[in-house]
Amino acid sequence: VSHAQLPHLSLFALPSIPEIHPGDDLGAIIAEQLRREGIELQDGDVIVVTQKIVSKAEGRLVELGAISPSPQAIALADRTGKDSRLVEVILRESRGVVRERPGLIITETHHGWICANAGVDRSNIADPDAEVVLTLPLDPDASARRIRDRLCKIIAAGGAPAPDIAVIITDSHGRAWRRAAVNLAIGVAGMQPIVDLRGQADRFGRTLQVTTVARADELAAAAGLLSGQAAEGLPVVIIRGADWPHGEGRATDIQRPIEKDMFR
Amino acid sequence: VSHAQLPHLSLFALPSIPEIHPGDDLGAIIAEQLRREGIELQDGDVIVVTQKIVSKAEGRLVELGAISPSPQAIALADRTGKDSRLVEVILRESRGVVRERPGLIITETHHGWICANAGVDRSNIADPDAEVVLTLPLDPDASARRIRDRLCKIIAAGGAPAPDIAVIITDSHGRAWRRAAVNLAIGVAGMQPIVDLRGQADRFGRTLQVTTVARADELAAAAGLLSGQAAEGLPVVIIRGADWPHGEGRATDIQRPIEKDMFR
Repeated sequence: VSHAQLPHLSLFALPSIPEIHPGDDLGAIIAEQLRREGIELQDGDVIVVTQKIVSKAEGRLVELGAISPSPQAIALADRTGKDSRLVEVILRESRGVVRERPGLIITETHHGWICANAGVDRSNIADPDAEVVLTLPLDPDASARRIRDRLCKIIAAGGAPAPDIAVIITDSHGRAWRRAAVNLAIGVAGMQPIVDLRGQADRFGRTLQVTTVARADELAAAAGLLSGQAAEGLPVVIIRGADWPHGEGRATDIQRPIEKDMFR
Repeated sequence: VSHAQLPHLSLFALPSIPEIHPGDDLGAIIAEQLRREGIELQDGDVIVVTQKIVSKAEGRLVELGAISPSPQAIALADRTGKDSRLVEVILRESRGVVRERPGLIITETHHGWICANAGVDRSNIADPDAEVVLTLPLDPDASARRIRDRLCKIIAAGGAPAPDIAVIITDSHGRAWRRAAVNLAIGVAGMQPIVDLRGQADRFGRTLQVTTVARADELAAAAGLLSGQAAEGLPVVIIRGADWPHGEGRATDIQRPIEKDMFR
């Protein structure tokens, strides 16, 4: 390519990830797809995985038919016009409700993410007639770590040194103030999610004003450009050439502590 | 590269954008850098430009020495511990203050963006001793349109057909609920900033739950991976191979109308 000598980075998606079922070994599936495509992971690669296939692999499907809604769920369902069994699942996944209005419930999940419906989703479930919903992974940082460890182990078993990679689990969330969703990080492994520039100077020697950057969220959003939201969704994207802080951080480090959050 | 046959996209930065001064013709400067690097723009390329060089080219520098703070600015400066002249500039750039606390002022700018200090910035000003601040472009959508028109005109003057490109102006903003800043779109040209998936089905035929995606923000965040915040900032990034909705949208289309915004 003509720009190989410029500062650059690239993203590519694995096109043949199969439909994922409970118990599937995502790390092994990704390793197999990389092998099939002739791709060797390199130091600095980031493997970005959508929450949906992680939740499916971890069996985070809930049959609505088996749910008995609580009085609180029935009342909230009445006020918002939602299925009371779905609302019960949302409440079970949440620390509390942040906002409600007809058609919309925003909660804080047990992990601390603030998003619509506690991230509970009905789309991309194999049987469209089944009354099944998909909940977020219980611990997306642990999910990312498992995928990373598995990938590194498989590479090491092949005799190659394990590369220094990161894994990010993403979900698509709405935002305050801005319409439409963006892909964000809800789990990371092998990286710090935030770049800390405090104390660094700008090109003219003045201390930088914006001192922390949510690099994991920028990587997640970039992957969203390829993974998309549409029918042909590509759940695994590799980002090569990006600069990110290596280390053992957690996506929950991105969460703004409630006492410092002016927008709840 | 080994992944050229996979779904992929690439980003590259123009490394030699000179220091920008008021009155500089950014479209011509970018065209000249592209020529120097031997890069021909292609249909679908997105040119992502940081707000800082746009504001500099548009002369959006304010000398604090020339500012007489109003009583309102002096009072807000007292409460937040900020320079009252800076606060005066922030208030002049804003429709209103959304939140304040010691060390922090969040306003709604005249464009409708909600961000710290109305986007007014002291870093990356050439003279670190000068008491000069940089304000956002007056109309970032118009700024993007001017750069796009100029680029297309220069390409057409060279005899080539003008490619179908988009231009995005970005700024780095904090978020509700999540720590650290991400790069976001504050101006666009040649594209719709939001992808509307309403009515589309997922891979199993169920209507998609997340129905709109802020594609311009995902593109801006991706460019942030290269442009960075640090000393060697790269203010112009080209994204090649991304899918985005062509058309004549405005970044202000991303703004959630105040009556639908539950987080102010």
